[in-house]
Amino acid sequence: MIHLLHYHKSKGVDLHVNFPEKVSIRDVTLRDGLQNESVFIEAENKLGGLNEIIDAGFRRIEVTSFVHPKWVPALSDADELAKRLPKIPGIQYDALVPNIKGLERFLKTNIDTAVFFLSASTKHNEANLNRTTNESLVHVSDLISKTRSHNRKTMGAVATAFVCPYAGEVPYQEVERIVTTMVENGVDEVGLGDTIGKATPKMIYEYCSRIKDKYPDLTLSLHLHDTYGYALANIIAGIQSGVYIYDTAQAGLGGCPYAPGAPGNVQASQVVNFLERQGIETGIDIDKLKNTDQMFQDMVKKQTSV
Amino acid sequence: MIHLLHYHKSKGVDLHVNFPEKVSIRDVTLRDGLQNESVFIEAENKLGGLNEIIDAGFRRIEVTSFVHPKWVPALSDADELAKRLPKIPGIQYDALVPNIKGLERFLKTNIDTAVFFLSASTKHNEANLNRTTNESLVHVSDLISKTRSHNRKTMGAVATAFVCPYAGEVPYQEVERIVTTMVENGVDEVGLGDTIGKATPKMIYEYCSRIKDKYPDLTLSLHLHDTYGYALANIIAGIQSGVYIYDTAQAGLGGCPYAPGAPGNVQASQVVNFLERQGIETGIDIDKLKNTDQMFQDMVKKQTSV
Repeated sequence: MIHLLHYHKSKGVDLHVNFPEKVSIRDVTLRDGLQNESVFIEAENKLGGLNEIIDAGFRRIEVTSFVHPKWVPALSDADELAKRLPKIPGIQYDALVPNIKGLERFLKTNIDTAVFFLSASTKHNEANLNRTTNESLVHVSDLISKTRSHNRKTMGAVATAFVCPYAGEVPYQEVERIVTTMVENGVDEVGLGDTIGKATPKMIYEYCSRIKDKYPDLTLSLHLHDTYGYALANIIAGIQSGVYIYDTAQAGLGGCPYAPGAPGNVQASQVVNFLERQGIETGIDIDKLKNTDQMFQDMVKKQTSV
Repeated sequence: MIHLLHYHKSKGVDLHVNFPEKVSIRDVTLRDGLQNESVFIEAENKLGGLNEIIDAGFRRIEVTSFVHPKWVPALSDADELAKRLPKIPGIQYDALVPNIKGLERFLKTNIDTAVFFLSASTKHNEANLNRTTNESLVHVSDLISKTRSHNRKTMGAVATAFVCPYAGEVPYQEVERIVTTMVENGVDEVGLGDTIGKATPKMIYEYCSRIKDKYPDLTLSLHLHDTYGYALANIIAGIQSGVYIYDTAQAGLGGCPYAPGAPGNVQASQVVNFLERQGIETGIDIDKLKNTDQMFQDMVKKQTSV
């Protein structure tokens, strides 16, 4: 940790802001970025994009989801893609695993981390997964245990951890209860998602500080969408609360399919530039991200204009 | 002041984040928002916009500049506009005053505050004002003194207070030196400008904290552009350093004239929404800002498409 500043305010409370020397960026382009694209992108092209992402310096990449192909056609090549992932020391691949069938598919691959997901807001969970959050939590707990018995890494991804499109602000206690259950089942990492981009720095700071307070050794990450331009402010709030892993997507892909061009996941190049300019290392070569931004923009445009 | 949070981090330094109960928003649409528009908007239309701005709850408005009409044709109606400003108790009008001729014009009006400006970066000052920062500082000091002798309010506006398009990051000491001279000459308020939107939260926090430390009783404001999407993060950093006055423009007007649609001043509706959602009052009716956004967008489109 380096002290950003250690000035004492003349009035009011003593204020320390600590910035870490390094923050990790987790690329979710191939999964969340492409998930809502209406037209299928060939595994060959995805792998071409992946190579550029790796070449730019990313070491943690969410590559696909073992969801039933019917539900997410864009990711229906998950098994093929998994077989063809370049084996490079130091690279950690993650994939979403929605259920026991997905876990069976995951266990046949060399992907490092199984990511289990649910929504903190039960209305969003019901809309997305057709069951309550509590039902999903029982299910996810079981999947975490099964995955651990195979000595594979697990991550719990909590969607709508701050604001739900149907129910508004999600109470902190709901989020803590989910995280607690995941931790009790031995999860290796938890990611909190601002699925609709409506979390504020105040919420991010409060929720993450409290989770970090309760589980100081838990690896906690943030998945932020930039729908309303809050993402960079939320990253600062996250850093101030002690979160040092952030999801991003090339070209900011992953917006709403019904609003083309709308901001989706916070854009990798924007985040890397923002952090590096403040002396926070990401290990990523900012110059190479111009190419990846363009490459994925073209890939999506080319495909969706067919 | 309300405590945002008072959690103790389990590891690392004790972190307090204080949010104010209220933040003031200073509208700069009619001056900085329109300054670079290539076509003239009639005083009548400006006044119509001003009425909507006031109706939405803004109480501090920068309305024009007493610059020579040749340099900024968009504001060549300054004297007429000043005469026709609605006199409403509690509204504070500001206007830019570039020189002694401008001051003479200002003194004939009822506008409350004369805003004197220069750039902290001497390269930017030379490009804009054809003299060094030091030469401008002598000039501005004299104008502040003269204005005070007429018992009128003064504000010093420091452009490129963080990053200069020609010289890069501006050293803090340069900014402090300028502020010190202004304070010694009795200025009522200082505004620091992130003219090209490249200041980071780290810089904002450092520069503003240090200024507030040195001059705890100085009224300090921030003028942020959202060119790279940093403005909201910078507002949080500003608030954390004790700055509680922010400039905004309707529809985010004030971008570069050569990049139509590029973000300019941070957008009033975005800032008001962002702050109010975090429990920080602005006194502004967010619902009315949809109309003002649309009104000014139309005004500029209509004019520039002629």
